[in-house]
Amino acid sequence: MSFSNIMDSNSYTGGSAGRHGDGIIEARERMLGPAYRLFYRNPVHLVRGEGSHLFDADGTRYLDAYNNVASVGHCHPHVVDAVMRQMTSINTHTRYLHDGIVDYSGRLLATLGPEIDQVMYACTGSEANDLALRVASAHTGASGVIVTTEAYHGNTHAVTAISPSNGGAAVLGPHVRTVPPPDPRSAGSTADTFADHVRRAADDLQRAGFGVSCLVVDTIFSSDGIFADPDVLVPAVAAARAVGAVFIADEVQPGFGRTGEAMWGFDRHGVRPDIVTMGKPMGNGLPVSAIAARPDVLERFATTQPYFNTFGGSPVSMAAAAAVLDVIESEDLPAQVIGIGARLREGITRIAADHPAVGDIRGAGLYIGVEIVTADAAPDRGRARAIVEAMRDAHVLISVCGEHGNVLKIRPPLVFSDSDVDWFCTALDSALATTLATAG
Amino acid sequence: MSFSNIMDSNSYTGGSAGRHGDGIIEARERMLGPAYRLFYRNPVHLVRGEGSHLFDADGTRYLDAYNNVASVGHCHPHVVDAVMRQMTSINTHTRYLHDGIVDYSGRLLATLGPEIDQVMYACTGSEANDLALRVASAHTGASGVIVTTEAYHGNTHAVTAISPSNGGAAVLGPHVRTVPPPDPRSAGSTADTFADHVRRAADDLQRAGFGVSCLVVDTIFSSDGIFADPDVLVPAVAAARAVGAVFIADEVQPGFGRTGEAMWGFDRHGVRPDIVTMGKPMGNGLPVSAIAARPDVLERFATTQPYFNTFGGSPVSMAAAAAVLDVIESEDLPAQVIGIGARLREGITRIAADHPAVGDIRGAGLYIGVEIVTADAAPDRGRARAIVEAMRDAHVLISVCGEHGNVLKIRPPLVFSDSDVDWFCTALDSALATTLATAG
Repeated sequence: MSFSNIMDSNSYTGGSAGRHGDGIIEARERMLGPAYRLFYRNPVHLVRGEGSHLFDADGTRYLDAYNNVASVGHCHPHVVDAVMRQMTSINTHTRYLHDGIVDYSGRLLATLGPEIDQVMYACTGSEANDLALRVASAHTGASGVIVTTEAYHGNTHAVTAISPSNGGAAVLGPHVRTVPPPDPRSAGSTADTFADHVRRAADDLQRAGFGVSCLVVDTIFSSDGIFADPDVLVPAVAAARAVGAVFIADEVQPGFGRTGEAMWGFDRHGVRPDIVTMGKPMGNGLPVSAIAARPDVLERFATTQPYFNTFGGSPVSMAAAAAVLDVIESEDLPAQVIGIGARLREGITRIAADHPAVGDIRGAGLYIGVEIVTADAAPDRGRARAIVEAMRDAHVLISVCGEHGNVLKIRPPLVFSDSDVDWFCTALDSALATTLATAG
Repeated sequence: MSFSNIMDSNSYTGGSAGRHGDGIIEARERMLGPAYRLFYRNPVHLVRGEGSHLFDADGTRYLDAYNNVASVGHCHPHVVDAVMRQMTSINTHTRYLHDGIVDYSGRLLATLGPEIDQVMYACTGSEANDLALRVASAHTGASGVIVTTEAYHGNTHAVTAISPSNGGAAVLGPHVRTVPPPDPRSAGSTADTFADHVRRAADDLQRAGFGVSCLVVDTIFSSDGIFADPDVLVPAVAAARAVGAVFIADEVQPGFGRTGEAMWGFDRHGVRPDIVTMGKPMGNGLPVSAIAARPDVLERFATTQPYFNTFGGSPVSMAAAAAVLDVIESEDLPAQVIGIGARLREGITRIAADHPAVGDIRGAGLYIGVEIVTADAAPDRGRARAIVEAMRDAHVLISVCGEHGNVLKIRPPLVFSDSDVDWFCTALDSALATTLATAG
């Protein structure tokens, strides 16, 4: 257990963090309170973004290798234009008819494949996962939830209770069981081992009287440390269904082409979810999220529980989301992601040959995890943090994740270019050269 | 108990609802599922908005006397411009420094008066109330919550459990007790009676072992039926504090000048909340919400629980919110709301003289409730619904609320004009003349 995912191990309240003499850090601390954290010892103060680059007030250019929200690129003009056009015409809610939600829903559902035929909209991934839990519970009549060891599924009361990365056992609800993610470095078949864990967790939930409502998986295991091997979910999903539970694919991070090979993370695993949740990149920065589901799974909740989300599915939200789909299609981003992701991993792999501190390198598309280890191959959280800081000083933005906070989290906008890869690799090489092993 | 607030008594799935031969209603039903409801037997299909007016594809003009989200007016150019400027420069998150959140927080907190000195941002009123419950629980160490009989505080798992208007006892958590709102038509002092109910609910929560975490009140009692008398909260808040609970003012509906007399609903009651939640009109249609709190109340949660909201407090959200404050100030909306709200109530009162179906007329500023009653003064839900439909046919949009679904909910954008008042009153007069009393 660690706070590493949510705190990203490189966050600070920032009180004495340096050169921002204009008082902005002090003002944040005073007015936003202690829950607000900044990345980096020397926080970045950004004023402009374009594609995969960000700029501070001095005009210094940063390479964004971290932000998956502005997935089609910061300030993409097509998204900006679409939002503007909609904002100047109308923005109401789903109790009035509007073409935007109907047109978008058709396009979105077409990407999700057969059976997942209905969609409901919210504003954040947290709201989507919160709603998915309620849908699953109404359908199954059970309340037990199975998640992975370092899962993060959001910040509402209900999803915090299924997010051990928020603070481990202290935050988990009594109705929640955790299972280790399918780490390919474990012995045996990862898929079968994962399924065994799910089966044991299900047994335990049934013994405890909660029943099993759902297995919830981020299909690239983001906060667990990025485990990207395909096809590891089939037997676990079958095990969950065998006890009447549904499978919720949390696509907030892997979705919308991030993995290159597919629009959705679950596609890579050859499984069909019962419920899919999505968010972050959906509106390229506007708060747009959704759950999609099999109609028979959605039915019980949707016919017995009133649910209305004031901003969910609004004309402006749908305009942003449709523009994101336009760009994914018109710029052929999945193909771009495969190519550039491969180049980036090759570059990292080449660098690793000179730096034994680099352990496992893994990922899919533009979601890459790089383990930082000590000489005896133990997780080196301290050095991972130092690398993140050194790269920030070279104006390259990344973060860390994983149970031990030692996995570099590399997750740039999908419009990352060849020259971005070169810049990234130069900075990583230098950061590895200038940082030292720590006690981990 | 009723579904009236969330369902607004005038909602339909819309399956056979009429003239929309383009299949949009069928497409909604098929793709959005049964949770999605439309207003009106003959739903409106709107394509443009301006100020307090909306337009359908045929160019027919509608008077918006319902939507409190587009509070400074549909498509207000200052808000649109501010969002555009920000969207074309940068939109990231609160882990990087940005001036927008600091500037806005200073302005927002200045409106909230002393002691309420810290603010945290989310995207929806539901998220804000969900967070407020967690903050209150961390501070008090208790879990019991006291709400009003027909309260609506949102749609997450946790806030649905404190929202009896979502379905009464069936949705309420075991840790929740309801108290009747301070209805001035009840006998005795409404403030003292309300406090007595709160005291009894607190006793019951303590006996049941939950303790008392908070009293949560929408300070204009929106879904309870709009009870706008000032100064009814002081003894109830004192009673809650006497048992260690905090007072959460849910300002999602009354906030941001809606009541005219004050920026916040709680100001009208002469009480200081421990936590304030806000949303809907905050970004004039963009998903922006917040909780503000006394730092000592926020501290325990904020120092022990990681909380990060990806879109909350983003540069674009803050730009929209700041533009809304600009308009409230530059157009002197609170003063405008007092004047036009008084004219609207006078007009309704004049009409009521000819229509015995109008019972109590109440409200503050531009939040007005009009009871529709039978000849023997019983709630007439059926006629209230018929009036809403008749007004829709006259292109005036309102809805209903209250325990019996018989209170016309009149809550237009704050830029309602004199001629809007005339249009509204003509339509109401006509709707009262053409509808008949029902069995209620």
